[in-house]
Amino acid sequence: MFSISKKLILKTACSFCMLFFSITSFAQQPADYVNPFIGTSNFGAAFPGPIAPRGMASISPFNVAGVKNTPMEKDSQWLSNPYVNENTFLTGFSQVNLSGVGCPELGVILLMPTTGNLEIDHLKYGSTYSNEVAKAGYYSVDLKKYKVKGEFTASKRVGVSRFSFPKGQSNILINLGLGLTNEEGSMIKVVSSTEIEGMRSVGSFCYNSPEDAYPVYFVAKFSKPAEKFGVWKKPSKYNGVEAQWMSGYNGKARIMKNTIKTVVGDSIGSYFSYKFDKQETVEVKIGISYVSIENARENLEKETGDKSFDAVYKDTYKEWNDELSKILVEGGSEDDKTIFYTALYHTLIHPNTLNDVNGEYPQIKRTKIGKTDGTRYTVFSLWDTYRNMHPLTSLVYPKQQSDMIKSMLKMYDENGWLPKWELNSTETFTMVGDPASIVIVDACLKGIQDFDVYKAYYAMLKGADQIENNPLRPGLKEYIEKGYLSTNYPGPVSTTLEYNTSDYAISLLAKALGEKEDYKRFAKRSLSYQKLFDKNLKLLRPRIANGNWYEPFDPEAGSNFEANVGFIEGNAWQYAFMVPHDIKGLMKLMGGDKPFSDQLQKVFDDKKFDMANEPDIAYPYLFNYVKGEEWRSQELVKKLVQEYFQNKPKGLPGNDDTGTMSAWLVYSMMGFYPISPGDAIYTITTPMFDKVTIKLDSRYYKKENIVIEKEINTDGKIKTIELNGKPLNSYFISHDDFVNGGTLKVIQN
Amino acid sequence: MFSISKKLILKTACSFCMLFFSITSFAQQPADYVNPFIGTSNFGAAFPGPIAPRGMASISPFNVAGVKNTPMEKDSQWLSNPYVNENTFLTGFSQVNLSGVGCPELGVILLMPTTGNLEIDHLKYGSTYSNEVAKAGYYSVDLKKYKVKGEFTASKRVGVSRFSFPKGQSNILINLGLGLTNEEGSMIKVVSSTEIEGMRSVGSFCYNSPEDAYPVYFVAKFSKPAEKFGVWKKPSKYNGVEAQWMSGYNGKARIMKNTIKTVVGDSIGSYFSYKFDKQETVEVKIGISYVSIENARENLEKETGDKSFDAVYKDTYKEWNDELSKILVEGGSEDDKTIFYTALYHTLIHPNTLNDVNGEYPQIKRTKIGKTDGTRYTVFSLWDTYRNMHPLTSLVYPKQQSDMIKSMLKMYDENGWLPKWELNSTETFTMVGDPASIVIVDACLKGIQDFDVYKAYYAMLKGADQIENNPLRPGLKEYIEKGYLSTNYPGPVSTTLEYNTSDYAISLLAKALGEKEDYKRFAKRSLSYQKLFDKNLKLLRPRIANGNWYEPFDPEAGSNFEANVGFIEGNAWQYAFMVPHDIKGLMKLMGGDKPFSDQLQKVFDDKKFDMANEPDIAYPYLFNYVKGEEWRSQELVKKLVQEYFQNKPKGLPGNDDTGTMSAWLVYSMMGFYPISPGDAIYTITTPMFDKVTIKLDSRYYKKENIVIEKEINTDGKIKTIELNGKPLNSYFISHDDFVNGGTLKVIQN
Repeated sequence: MFSISKKLILKTACSFCMLFFSITSFAQQPADYVNPFIGTSNFGAAFPGPIAPRGMASISPFNVAGVKNTPMEKDSQWLSNPYVNENTFLTGFSQVNLSGVGCPELGVILLMPTTGNLEIDHLKYGSTYSNEVAKAGYYSVDLKKYKVKGEFTASKRVGVSRFSFPKGQSNILINLGLGLTNEEGSMIKVVSSTEIEGMRSVGSFCYNSPEDAYPVYFVAKFSKPAEKFGVWKKPSKYNGVEAQWMSGYNGKARIMKNTIKTVVGDSIGSYFSYKFDKQETVEVKIGISYVSIENARENLEKETGDKSFDAVYKDTYKEWNDELSKILVEGGSEDDKTIFYTALYHTLIHPNTLNDVNGEYPQIKRTKIGKTDGTRYTVFSLWDTYRNMHPLTSLVYPKQQSDMIKSMLKMYDENGWLPKWELNSTETFTMVGDPASIVIVDACLKGIQDFDVYKAYYAMLKGADQIENNPLRPGLKEYIEKGYLSTNYPGPVSTTLEYNTSDYAISLLAKALGEKEDYKRFAKRSLSYQKLFDKNLKLLRPRIANGNWYEPFDPEAGSNFEANVGFIEGNAWQYAFMVPHDIKGLMKLMGGDKPFSDQLQKVFDDKKFDMANEPDIAYPYLFNYVKGEEWRSQELVKKLVQEYFQNKPKGLPGNDDTGTMSAWLVYSMMGFYPISPGDAIYTITTPMFDKVTIKLDSRYYKKENIVIEKEINTDGKIKTIELNGKPLNSYFISHDDFVNGGTLKVIQN
Repeated sequence: MFSISKKLILKTACSFCMLFFSITSFAQQPADYVNPFIGTSNFGAAFPGPIAPRGMASISPFNVAGVKNTPMEKDSQWLSNPYVNENTFLTGFSQVNLSGVGCPELGVILLMPTTGNLEIDHLKYGSTYSNEVAKAGYYSVDLKKYKVKGEFTASKRVGVSRFSFPKGQSNILINLGLGLTNEEGSMIKVVSSTEIEGMRSVGSFCYNSPEDAYPVYFVAKFSKPAEKFGVWKKPSKYNGVEAQWMSGYNGKARIMKNTIKTVVGDSIGSYFSYKFDKQETVEVKIGISYVSIENARENLEKETGDKSFDAVYKDTYKEWNDELSKILVEGGSEDDKTIFYTALYHTLIHPNTLNDVNGEYPQIKRTKIGKTDGTRYTVFSLWDTYRNMHPLTSLVYPKQQSDMIKSMLKMYDENGWLPKWELNSTETFTMVGDPASIVIVDACLKGIQDFDVYKAYYAMLKGADQIENNPLRPGLKEYIEKGYLSTNYPGPVSTTLEYNTSDYAISLLAKALGEKEDYKRFAKRSLSYQKLFDKNLKLLRPRIANGNWYEPFDPEAGSNFEANVGFIEGNAWQYAFMVPHDIKGLMKLMGGDKPFSDQLQKVFDDKKFDMANEPDIAYPYLFNYVKGEEWRSQELVKKLVQEYFQNKPKGLPGNDDTGTMSAWLVYSMMGFYPISPGDAIYTITTPMFDKVTIKLDSRYYKKENIVIEKEINTDGKIKTIELNGKPLNSYFISHDDFVNGGTLKVIQN
């Protein structure tokens, strides 16, 4: 029933105001609900340390090196995070980190406090720890070996650490040899007794593109001048006749005291030492830049200048709270709010800021230094994020989404291609497909159009049409000719589906732009997956080059990320429904509602569903396409949230994928989902809060808020959905109706 | 007979003027006689490429890497020079080099022109060569593989290269991985299509003090913008599980095209590529600094700015000619003049300039950056150079000698100790003894006193007296207590003799300063070698700690640089007479003139004399102490010059020892020698030119010139020596008499 009059809206707004004030005064703020430990186990790959929203700098406790009696050691396995909650041996605090990725990268510039005699071997100076506290923008821990308390916060480009040392000799190390990245090479120099500068090579994300390894620069400022300082280097070991003359020092670490010389090498570092008469604190600010040491210094000065640790934390906390308060939730348990706001927090880490305070940033491939007036974003894990993270950003943070698109278009200017998996101005070419188009079209059709739409359109067309030397769409010729990639290419079914999805998005933009021919062409191309449909199996199946089915075919092959012939990171079941733009068409292929529904239910009944990876994460919502079966979606979503998302370190199903899993949770708890990325449409399920208020950005949306309310009954199934008091008569709602609707009420009575 | 009246002097001066003009107009200038190939074979360790007088930058063809079918490969033996005349495989042109040293060091920043496709492996891009031309300040060569002509010159801090390329693709590489030094680690960055900047770690001279390894910075400017550019890196190889994921690239070189990113590593480089329609030349200027990249850039700009290759060469040629013209020789063969001026040239390479044009330089141990108004000199191989090179500099280039002493005193300010073997602000502590005192006293007593003499005096006393933690004089306690070092110390006899010699120098300064107690104390200390005199052997012999002779003792042990118990780089014979300050005392110990003379002659007769090393190089002059036997010195010196010093690559007896062997030759050809360093005295032999004119620096000396003339007879023995026409009645002359005398005439009739 549609029942909300204008009066009622005002009333609601007013009661909300009061509630808000009471929250402000007495209750927890959204930022207070963030639990950064969520996702720090079970390969979630989140880190518990501080970062500002979309910050360049971040600090993570680093406990994955030299860990004894545990398999989670960085060099003994493919490990993509600087911190694992179960580990116990801490060797420093890394100053640049990625959150929720699947490949080792960054996790470098390790700051470490110690006491007593200087020790530079991390296996010897590492410590167990206790009393970890993690909040939005803050982390603290006690190092047992040294009785040192470390506290950490960060502004956008500066990590700030505060160490409370006991009386006696204390040391602060910056170890550039150790790190999560599998790249090596650093430079370091003590500038004065309060400053160190340097750089660290990082890159080769997923052990790809080693030639694109790149530098991260830093300047570290210390609040107290060192009594003694120095650098160290552990050189590589010589062989041959020269080794004889290097008796005693060949390959051994050298400590170089009281020197301001530049040292380079794979395993180097610097130390500051103090002699304290009483307990003392030292604050260390580390400014980061991907352009130069000078810019790192400017970032540090402009962002943190004379600000204390507490002042930096206060500002970053406020920034987080402002961002997180764009969605206010009421009802639900404390844990519900915690997992919700932590998920929203995780969607606000990547893409992150690449440019320095002066606007400079390295252009793609580092051919030159660019300059921006706005924000140049980086870390676009688009194969993941196009599905829900970017649509969420378009809705809640449209200005950020706009700047992200502008960043993507700048990459196109610089490189000739839209990004695929862009990381700090390197194109890692990880995963398959051409997802940038979907992200841009999705935002564009949702009303974010303050960028050069035609440039974006032509950039998409280039990726979609250029047959030769096309780094985004390998196999494009075969795809266009046959409608699919054959097994001559890796993951041909997955890739075909990704191309179809992108082509569908392009067709939508073509239509909107009145480009009829393109519209028709791409609309047609987007359905070519149908040629891979095996009617017997009711599954999509790889074909070999001559058109025959690939044999022998095992639909189960490829679960748990095993390599297989047809699919990338999944099997035939996990890709069976990955045609978000043509579920109706797929339904037909399968023989109608019932067979579709049965096949879909089988995925869940037979545990073929993988909550931890992207291809099938929209599946729970697909029952909304079958009239009368929508309750299955409602039950499934609720069940999956309860099973996989919890207020504990293991509380993510796996890699967060730069916020994609978290975005899934944010949507699912709010009761809607962007079911077909590119399409400005959402599908609806039961919210997990009594009320959700999304504040809209007046620069992009007319209304101030979207409000989602629910009325609960006993069997938990939705009976009615109302938009501003009028029945919706659908489990789908267009973006326009949604953002202009006011209140969506989900009624179960 | 003293015969030269004032009139005659004027006449002489006048005829000299005419001669000089005729030289200027038609004849070869002193600089034209320089043959930089001398000393590039037979371990002379000179390099044939250009350097300005006492320049920081120098360019050497680098042909010691990957040399096939020859033992002179840098990694297959202890090799201390970037170029060996017999080698044939050239892999670049190193931009900083040491001349005439005995340990591998510098020989880095290798510039290399190639043509065709880019190749970054020096074993593949190296080339044979022909048509080498080497002159003071100039070197050129044709690279056979590429038909590229390379020409090279240098200003004080900038190496300038000019490559003439054929039509087609050409490349200029800067390889920072390759080098003579046994240190590793570099940084490089393309700044623009005409500029590259970077640094290279060097150090561990003689495989000592690896913790003192230090950076040399550079900026390279190209006269033509590169069409393509890039960097490369060959990383170290991973082992373990990560190696599996680095399939195909683990440990392999990576070329990174068109990028301005900073790259660090042990094996890195940068390239500029061109496509030429016709033959073209490219000039590359490489500015050097030991302080910073900024200073390297400033050095480049200030010294060479817009100057062409030819203009830089012209200026450097003039500088060389001005310096070399301080001594004019007449008579003698072309080869005599060539070996003479080349030797003088070799004495003007080290010590060399360390400070940048803005006066900045790294202080000892690089604790901070210092600044000088004058010249900060470096590369003080004092164990070698105190014997004759510094005395020569005091006589001919007293301002330089003064600045060298000021540099040494600055080192004392910075480090607390005078230098021993200082190299680019590292103290290598190579060799034994405390030679700085001798150098300073020698200059001081010759009238160079425009420095803080008392500071110098106290610095000497500290080195001579501080028992504990004395890095200059290990074993000092035992030396003071017993008068000698026992075999508990390495090379105890050699070290005792060095300490004696230094103590004698200190006693001379103490006397001059009126410090009577010190004078007596050090005069006494300087004779303690006598306790090591074995009357039976008439040799100096090591004692063990309890005072007994070391047994079994083989006086021959230690020739050819073999390690032995008593001596450093020599045996008992080569040190038997190394008490330059107490030859009369030694004579007494030996039993008088005759036994002394016999023992000395035995050294030469039995081929125990080593012309290639310092301890015994004054021996040929020692017959001058025995009345009636002076002719032996005259014959020996002449014979040794003819045997060991020639106008060919093998024309030095061995390591030039930063000009020490060359200084020996310069003195010996002029007919006098500083027989007792510290003492302002020379001994005289037959000049090898008809006339030698040494121009004196009016800031330090009253007279304009010293003129040495000879009159020849048949048997070649000196009959009379006249000073300004008056008989000298001695084969010795004081410095004062010499520089104030006007003309020294050596008459054989």
